[in-house]
Amino acid sequence: MTHGNAPATPRSTLVVTAHAGDFVWRAGGAIALAASRGEKVTIACLTFGERGESARAWREGKKLEEIKALRREEAERTAATLGAEVRFFDAGDYPLTPTPELTDRLVAVYRDTQPDVVLTHPAEDPYNGDHPAANRMALQARVPAQAIGYPGPGEIIGAPPVFCFEPHQPEMSGFRPEVLLDITEVWDTKRRAMECLGAQQHLWDYYTDLAVRRGVQLKRNAGPNLGLPHRTMAEAYMRPYPQVTKELA
Amino acid sequence: MTHGNAPATPRSTLVVTAHAGDFVWRAGGAIALAASRGEKVTIACLTFGERGESARAWREGKKLEEIKALRREEAERTAATLGAEVRFFDAGDYPLTPTPELTDRLVAVYRDTQPDVVLTHPAEDPYNGDHPAANRMALQARVPAQAIGYPGPGEIIGAPPVFCFEPHQPEMSGFRPEVLLDITEVWDTKRRAMECLGAQQHLWDYYTDLAVRRGVQLKRNAGPNLGLPHRTMAEAYMRPYPQVTKELA
Amino acid sequence: MTHGNAPATPRSTLVVTAHAGDFVWRAGGAIALAASRGEKVTIACLTFGERGESARAWREGKKLEEIKALRREEAERTAATLGAEVRFFDAGDYPLTPTPELTDRLVAVYRDTQPDVVLTHPAEDPYNGDHPAANRMALQARVPAQAIGYPGPGEIIGAPPVFCFEPHQPEMSGFRPEVLLDITEVWDTKRRAMECLGAQQHLWDYYTDLAVRRGVQLKRNAGPNLGLPHRTMAEAYMRPYPQVTKELA
Amino acid sequence: MTHGNAPATPRSTLVVTAHAGDFVWRAGGAIALAASRGEKVTIACLTFGERGESARAWREGKKLEEIKALRREEAERTAATLGAEVRFFDAGDYPLTPTPELTDRLVAVYRDTQPDVVLTHPAEDPYNGDHPAANRMALQARVPAQAIGYPGPGEIIGAPPVFCFEPHQPEMSGFRPEVLLDITEVWDTKRRAMECLGAQQHLWDYYTDLAVRRGVQLKRNAGPNLGLPHRTMAEAYMRPYPQVTKELA
Amino acid sequence: MTHGNAPATPRSTLVVTAHAGDFVWRAGGAIALAASRGEKVTIACLTFGERGESARAWREGKKLEEIKALRREEAERTAATLGAEVRFFDAGDYPLTPTPELTDRLVAVYRDTQPDVVLTHPAEDPYNGDHPAANRMALQARVPAQAIGYPGPGEIIGAPPVFCFEPHQPEMSGFRPEVLLDITEVWDTKRRAMECLGAQQHLWDYYTDLAVRRGVQLKRNAGPNLGLPHRTMAEAYMRPYPQVTKELA
Amino acid sequence: MTHGNAPATPRSTLVVTAHAGDFVWRAGGAIALAASRGEKVTIACLTFGERGESARAWREGKKLEEIKALRREEAERTAATLGAEVRFFDAGDYPLTPTPELTDRLVAVYRDTQPDVVLTHPAEDPYNGDHPAANRMALQARVPAQAIGYPGPGEIIGAPPVFCFEPHQPEMSGFRPEVLLDITEVWDTKRRAMECLGAQQHLWDYYTDLAVRRGVQLKRNAGPNLGLPHRTMAEAYMRPYPQVTKELA
Repeated sequence: MTHGNAPATPRSTLVVTAHAGDFVWRAGGAIALAASRGEKVTIACLTFGERGESARAWREGKKLEEIKALRREEAERTAATLGAEVRFFDAGDYPLTPTPELTDRLVAVYRDTQPDVVLTHPAEDPYNGDHPAANRMALQARVPAQAIGYPGPGEIIGAPPVFCFEPHQPEMSGFRPEVLLDITEVWDTKRRAMECLGAQQHLWDYYTDLAVRRGVQLKRNAGPNLGLPHRTMAEAYMRPYPQVTKELA
Repeated sequence: MTHGNAPATPRSTLVVTAHAGDFVWRAGGAIALAASRGEKVTIACLTFGERGESARAWREGKKLEEIKALRREEAERTAATLGAEVRFFDAGDYPLTPTPELTDRLVAVYRDTQPDVVLTHPAEDPYNGDHPAANRMALQARVPAQAIGYPGPGEIIGAPPVFCFEPHQPEMSGFRPEVLLDITEVWDTKRRAMECLGAQQHLWDYYTDLAVRRGVQLKRNAGPNLGLPHRTMAEAYMRPYPQVTKELA
Repeated sequence: MTHGNAPATPRSTLVVTAHAGDFVWRAGGAIALAASRGEKVTIACLTFGERGESARAWREGKKLEEIKALRREEAERTAATLGAEVRFFDAGDYPLTPTPELTDRLVAVYRDTQPDVVLTHPAEDPYNGDHPAANRMALQARVPAQAIGYPGPGEIIGAPPVFCFEPHQPEMSGFRPEVLLDITEVWDTKRRAMECLGAQQHLWDYYTDLAVRRGVQLKRNAGPNLGLPHRTMAEAYMRPYPQVTKELA
Repeated sequence: MTHGNAPATPRSTLVVTAHAGDFVWRAGGAIALAASRGEKVTIACLTFGERGESARAWREGKKLEEIKALRREEAERTAATLGAEVRFFDAGDYPLTPTPELTDRLVAVYRDTQPDVVLTHPAEDPYNGDHPAANRMALQARVPAQAIGYPGPGEIIGAPPVFCFEPHQPEMSGFRPEVLLDITEVWDTKRRAMECLGAQQHLWDYYTDLAVRRGVQLKRNAGPNLGLPHRTMAEAYMRPYPQVTKELA
Repeated sequence: MTHGNAPATPRSTLVVTAHAGDFVWRAGGAIALAASRGEKVTIACLTFGERGESARAWREGKKLEEIKALRREEAERTAATLGAEVRFFDAGDYPLTPTPELTDRLVAVYRDTQPDVVLTHPAEDPYNGDHPAANRMALQARVPAQAIGYPGPGEIIGAPPVFCFEPHQPEMSGFRPEVLLDITEVWDTKRRAMECLGAQQHLWDYYTDLAVRRGVQLKRNAGPNLGLPHRTMAEAYMRPYPQVTKELA
Repeated sequence: MTHGNAPATPRSTLVVTAHAGDFVWRAGGAIALAASRGEKVTIACLTFGERGESARAWREGKKLEEIKALRREEAERTAATLGAEVRFFDAGDYPLTPTPELTDRLVAVYRDTQPDVVLTHPAEDPYNGDHPAANRMALQARVPAQAIGYPGPGEIIGAPPVFCFEPHQPEMSGFRPEVLLDITEVWDTKRRAMECLGAQQHLWDYYTDLAVRRGVQLKRNAGPNLGLPHRTMAEAYMRPYPQVTKELA
């Protein structure tokens, strides 16, 4: 929602994720869309997913630091494909454990990036506790980032809207699509970004099918008079806070 | 959401309410906003509220037909103030009872008005069963209105988004504000429309206070860089179906 | 809650149940307690439970009218034991089907008895659809009974608090004990009333055990300084509407 | 609920809040009511709200210790106006972080004050994580305070009922009014206490409007025969544990 | 669960669906599996889906009776492919309206087929009210079918477990997979049955993708030591009643 | 669910509980059943319940280490009666506090026991925070135990199904019986195991009554043709993850 004149600086999106691979599968379309409009997108990646999402590398006998380096390089390539910058926190996964230091660092990223929009995991995921942990940290750091009394560099932020992307097993995680984002025009970019993650080739088609299915749902929920393409691709999101608008649509 | 070129005909809003007074208290701002943009707004008023919302008239000894006439006249004046047309179904309130005939008539209104947006009551209200009944009828008629196989005049409709307005006791009715609509610029119109309902003068201030409170909430949930006025007025809505969009904001 | 002076007329309780046996198992303690304080208790019994709760009589080859007569006699004896009056609607069970006529008759009972308290089934019961039907009818009739515009004999009523008693399978019915009523001092009366229902002897101990268990729960939730007896007996209720009070306790 | 004779010592209320300002806005009426009956009220204030609720002081360039001192003085004046004593934990806000030491100190306060009633924040508040943190600490400390095996000075306590007061955005926090407390007779005291908080003048009218609205709701939910004043003021609460009673009302 | 010796008669499954096409998309695997074990499967098809699911035929100018005949023939062919018998109720769709006569006819089918398992739609579907209506009718008729007092031919039934199959938009319908059924070995049969429905060719791949996705989920939730095939196909179900078992597994 | 041939090693069950007494009251039947089939059952007992569940010993003036020794001996005797092995973590109760070390030790037990089934507390219990804490630790350790990247001895595990046993106040803890386990044939063993806990004699009958009540519920939910004994005893469980099966029953 924009009241009054457009701001001089480009819009900014902050994505807070648990593991290095999360942002592309779940929010790659939203990231590519924002980047395609000339907006700034910053990904705060709390861990490399070195323990929980790197089974093949461990089976190949790689060491912890090697795996982290591999995943860092892969994530940077993926982010670049989407048009985003990624910052690594290296907080350790399986389990990802919240600490005051992590909160401090996240507050600093909020104040540095001044986000207009925040993307993160949803609050529940019975299959991977790191995802809800990232959600809690993203939402909790957003509050002191708004408080002048909380110490740290940078200007305080406003109250940017938050969107939670789809977990791997949505129905088991209380996920209900509240926003369906049309990503058709950046689909090729998302697919190329997914293909940067060579170790998870089986997910390329899985998430393509999901985008098709969410696209079917989008068309079923779209109002009249929409010239939607035959094969609409979409991503689903939840909103933990109300939408603010000047028009019901 | 508008994909491609804007349609030639103005946008159309359909409001389905249980009683003659409901539309102004709960959705007067949305109606006035749409009308102020040159859009068409049609109110399908299922009953006059002759039994449940006309206590003063009954105490004054008025008869049923007199009361209906009074409420019809009042509702027409209120709708005109907001810039909308009202159609009466005279289905009988307390209780409002769904029938196949009412569904038929509602399907006809859907097809006649070809709504881009639908407003109605939310699904729960433990204090007034007519409100959930109107919700069910509005949602149920919307489905056959889309089906070429359902007989009746007019073209079938698309799948317009639905917004449920705030009930009198929101927390008791499972109401959670999912959309906060900024109605500041049409607030004076809504207030004037409320003042058409002389028998419920105690509600004028009640719903003014509610608009202030929802305005405070809107500001608390609005993103950064918004030049919102000091006294923002708002209305709250729920969305039973997902929002369809090309941008997260 | 009593504000100001006590009213001259004794307090009145209205119990709305689906079948002739329901009131004793589920609310016999509350009924006996109210009666023991000199209050008036009226049971609106919508059906005799002639199809759904009279398996033994059917197996013995009894006819429909015989069964109804048996159950009526039994229910009257049970009610008398508790100190209450019972009124039969004979609306037919399995399934109990709401009609405008039943609503009319229930509104008349509300206005005639002017209840200070209403007891009925809770909103959910996946094992017996007649119970939720009775709940809906009790709650729906309570609204027009308050409206001067709804025709019928008697004075309109206020908005009496409603308590929903415990269903047979509480966890499957979304039942959460929100009120624990100490029925220790009338327990013997409830037990005697249960024993009026000779055909359901297996339930005597079942509901005695339940009262013991709810009594244990009552003691676990009671505040300090309570001189509760060793064997406290209790019944559990839900409140669909908020408690109104002058003191938190 | 009082079984048997009244205890010799006056009743005791314990209020556990996150920040120095919370108790007056949300529970000032309940506190003043209890005090007006000669009961003892103790407020355990976990932080001064020095970071999250003192924006104006920070903008004026005040230092952390100055701000804490200001808020302490203000809270003491407010509590005295209501008739309560306040104890400061100085645990640090934004975020308020639970620790074993805080639990220990809270257990000691429970045992020292022997509360008959406990008031605290509700379990959810997506806008301020300190509030749910205070709720969890209040509920968690209440359990070992009952256990003879938990070390520490003082007698173990019973199981006092808990009431959760209304958050700033009730519908977003899953708040449903389960108890409406009539605070009409102490309203002037609550208003005077609010006026002790000079830096938050915009909230004086906000919480007056809320008390009016809850008063309207109280009247709508009150049973018959109540001589309620024209302008009834109320506060809303939730009950995490069942009500224990000897009479349904 | 089988206690004691296996019964002499083969097991019986009853499927209650709203429209002629529902059973194959949503439960075709379960039906084919049961049939492949020599069990009897009966499909109670409440309507032909003549208005709501036959858009192409209407566009081709076909008449109502022609469309019903087409859909009947198609459904019979599909059921035969799966190994089931289908019985048509012709109750009229869009909307499907419950009546006492329909309940009577359903009770008769329950008693005639004596089901060991019942399959039907889940309780919610905001996109198609006929589906919840079929659910309610299936569950409601199951209760009097157990009552000796309910008149009608045939023996009373036991309390067969109920499984609700997956709706088209699961997350919008409160659907949570509680049972994942491995249908790999009958997948080819289900695919062939789907291909009997020529007018809905776009759904063949859609439901194949869904079976793959539920298969992935099955593997993720399966315990250890399972020799599951590479491409496991599955269907998801909810259980409105508890599972009864002699072993946790 | 067993696909293909039975494994050579006997099935393994892992029970994770907060206090030394929990496993017998809540899961004694499931443990005895598994043991009676020759399966291995291991109980990971996180604390001795030395503070929260040993009130009598404290009142008798016993010391902390004495109480721990008493409870250890009692738990070992109880486990032996049921046919299980118990391992003590001695993590300290009231409150039980999760730490990385505890997670490490639990992961090691998962990998050592290679469970086919996991039993633990449910996610909610407003009366005892140690129970939800044990649930979280059991579920969280189960995830890294599956990850080859998580360091530690032993083989990684599969994804064993989890069953949550019934809490003391089920309706207050969101507990809904999703599985009813017939424990009739091992009831005598469970009763004998309960009788090993001499200090809690009042619970022997309480949990016997509960088993009767769950048995009645089991019979009411069992399908037809079951030769269930007159007095069926049962335990109730929830499933946080979907059931995986080859047959609906």
